[in-house]
Amino acid sequence: MAQQRRIDLVLDSVKRLLRIGATANLLNLLQKQHPADLAQIFSELPDKERDTAFSLLAERNGRLAMEAISELGPEAGAALLATRSADEIARLAQEIPSDDAAALIDYLPEELSAAVLDLMRPKESGVVENLLEYDEQTAGRIMNPHVFALNEDMTVGEAITELQTNRDVEMVFYLYVVDERRHLVGVVSLRRLLLVSPETPLKRIMTADLISARVETDQEEVARHVASYNLLAVPVVDEENKLVGVITVDDVIDVMKDEATEDIYRLAGVASDERVFASSAETFRKRLPTLAIQLLTLFAAAAVVALFEPTIGKVTALAVFMPIVVGMGATAATQTLTVMVRGLALGELTWSNARKALLKEVSIGIGNGILLGILAAIVAWLAKGDPVLGLLLGFAMILNLFVAAAAGTLVPLGLRAANVDPALASSVVVTTLTDVLGFGAFLGLATLFLRYLTTT
Amino acid sequence: MAQQRRIDLVLDSVKRLLRIGATANLLNLLQKQHPADLAQIFSELPDKERDTAFSLLAERNGRLAMEAISELGPEAGAALLATRSADEIARLAQEIPSDDAAALIDYLPEELSAAVLDLMRPKESGVVENLLEYDEQTAGRIMNPHVFALNEDMTVGEAITELQTNRDVEMVFYLYVVDERRHLVGVVSLRRLLLVSPETPLKRIMTADLISARVETDQEEVARHVASYNLLAVPVVDEENKLVGVITVDDVIDVMKDEATEDIYRLAGVASDERVFASSAETFRKRLPTLAIQLLTLFAAAAVVALFEPTIGKVTALAVFMPIVVGMGATAATQTLTVMVRGLALGELTWSNARKALLKEVSIGIGNGILLGILAAIVAWLAKGDPVLGLLLGFAMILNLFVAAAAGTLVPLGLRAANVDPALASSVVVTTLTDVLGFGAFLGLATLFLRYLTTT
Repeated sequence: MAQQRRIDLVLDSVKRLLRIGATANLLNLLQKQHPADLAQIFSELPDKERDTAFSLLAERNGRLAMEAISELGPEAGAALLATRSADEIARLAQEIPSDDAAALIDYLPEELSAAVLDLMRPKESGVVENLLEYDEQTAGRIMNPHVFALNEDMTVGEAITELQTNRDVEMVFYLYVVDERRHLVGVVSLRRLLLVSPETPLKRIMTADLISARVETDQEEVARHVASYNLLAVPVVDEENKLVGVITVDDVIDVMKDEATEDIYRLAGVASDERVFASSAETFRKRLPTLAIQLLTLFAAAAVVALFEPTIGKVTALAVFMPIVVGMGATAATQTLTVMVRGLALGELTWSNARKALLKEVSIGIGNGILLGILAAIVAWLAKGDPVLGLLLGFAMILNLFVAAAAGTLVPLGLRAANVDPALASSVVVTTLTDVLGFGAFLGLATLFLRYLTTT
Repeated sequence: MAQQRRIDLVLDSVKRLLRIGATANLLNLLQKQHPADLAQIFSELPDKERDTAFSLLAERNGRLAMEAISELGPEAGAALLATRSADEIARLAQEIPSDDAAALIDYLPEELSAAVLDLMRPKESGVVENLLEYDEQTAGRIMNPHVFALNEDMTVGEAITELQTNRDVEMVFYLYVVDERRHLVGVVSLRRLLLVSPETPLKRIMTADLISARVETDQEEVARHVASYNLLAVPVVDEENKLVGVITVDDVIDVMKDEATEDIYRLAGVASDERVFASSAETFRKRLPTLAIQLLTLFAAAAVVALFEPTIGKVTALAVFMPIVVGMGATAATQTLTVMVRGLALGELTWSNARKALLKEVSIGIGNGILLGILAAIVAWLAKGDPVLGLLLGFAMILNLFVAAAAGTLVPLGLRAANVDPALASSVVVTTLTDVLGFGAFLGLATLFLRYLTTT
């Protein structure tokens, strides 16, 4: 499994062969690679070399070249394709399953994608256009419309013959059974076919109670189903329960990876489709909004501090310790809201158990606040020789960790209820609360008890 | 797919039936549920009700009860089992595949797990003990040792007969082919068996070039392989290439979910195995270290501020704007390091392309710094009427966003090189840097240019 080392070696050879122009050897080497490995090799080559290597491979083995492009992901894949002619893209797009082709074509510049669809065989472009009509991130959009289905009146023997004549169907392990109008009525596993005699009617051995997705089902929900019921594929039906496609577990794994990345990125204020090597200009543009919003909220926090400038003028030690109050609040808030956002994503946190979660988080927040507040109070006292300053710091910390816990629990739940992705906005709302309340509590208390504090 | 609504309904019925003591009806209802749904129902029931429901089900249908427990995950599952007698656990553990049993037993209190292993049938406990000897998070630990293998000298017809007599083997779609000493020599897909005549020797139709994992391979690497090569299962071999187990795609999905959660949690300083409803005491204990370390680093930042107390005493406006410098630094750093940590996890970021990533991040950091720094400078100037204060704020922000970008890229890479999980420690190292340098730059510059600033 030392895949990375092997790929690095192949990459070095590819670069060398490109440099010396050894086209035949290069083609030979590329053709031996798995599409997933080729995708990684393409992504690590400099732009010019990548184009050359892809052109060479596309001419000789269009299918492998396009499979590698698919593995790159639709966005990066489309970017690589976008420099070619519509004619060539149309030819290449027909080499891969229509769901993969649709994903790529969707990311091409609008004019180019229209031209490509015009140039494809009408049957193929029709299938792709159908897929593109479904909303993004739905089952309809990611399903493979070439689904292998058997008529309910068939016998096991007939089903096996059918399988033998349709050798190019992708990944068959569940055989879906439909009635004469293509309504989904059951499923038979491939293995089950081997265990019964050829005369057995499919109807007798099929499972009629099966899980299916509707075309408009959210892809994340499909993924959750496959994961919890350990499925290898889910059939997709339209509003009349007619079988229109299938989503296989490998598609689900891609969805899960994308959704996990999306959650991680959104918590950090990064666009969900950002990648390490997206273009700088685009990344700059995508990160700016988060930073700008953060700047705005920090001005709000600064405005709170400004209210207490006269107090700080008298006790400059307050400026020394105020970052501790808000820093601890932010850290504790991040812990709580991360667990809540992930719990919502995994379906573990719901409205019915929210109260339990809130009580738990608040008790932990207060507990940590007391423990660390006392510690901070002692350090501040020792550092500045002022026990009242220590007391104020400790008390502000307890208060802020309580706010962090409550807001960290309630804000994600509230956003979910308001149909806003909790991963997207929780962080900025909660840290603004802990910033404003942290500064306000610490400096406000200091102002109230100013006469007990050692002034500078 | 309205699974959640259905589960909520079942949950309500379960609670009602428990309340009125309608045992027979309750058992009836529970037995109709899928293990994954039962797991969710168990997790949402209060402790006492959960115990009662589990006891009832375990007595009638031990296998279903244990499958539900397995779906809960080993930690939560073991917690539920831990209140029962070793005798009962031993009986129940034999109802599920040994890999699932091993995972549960591993999380039982030590004395109890020893007693359980003693009480299991020697053959079963031997298998479980073998699995537990492999390191955590390795292929050996998560594999299913009951792997279906065929001898290379068999024909297709013999293979089918073999399949028909071994009806209880889990999830068969790849048939692994071994030599007489059980060395892994090839693989045949179930479907391929249907497409050739029964006399065909397996050797002729098997694929000899197949991907396998070693028992000590990291589970994350196995998951990455399954995902990139679209596999349904990976055979696991020992150091002599003997077939000892199989990891199926459903196990891989669990690994991927756990690893994504781990990355998300570690970035936020939460223990990787925390769940929304872990016990408060345990959660408190697990979150404390991150908070304590954060407190320590905040004291370091506070010490930097303390160096410049006399300056703050003269220009209290500095205390108002200093949270902006460090707050922006922390936000920008989080964006960069999240993308880097995820890029490392997905295998997109490597040493060979690190320079490219660094250049990109630094240019974005400086770009954002200039744009937002100018904005902040103007606001500070307008708010306080002091252009020099604005200038210092803007300059400190540019500097800090540069530091955030550089540290956000280099720290995760450095930690990975030092074999420390970058998700675990990047955040605290990077934000400490931006805190200390942010305060230092802003207040240091202010001290240098003090005579040009409007004093309070």
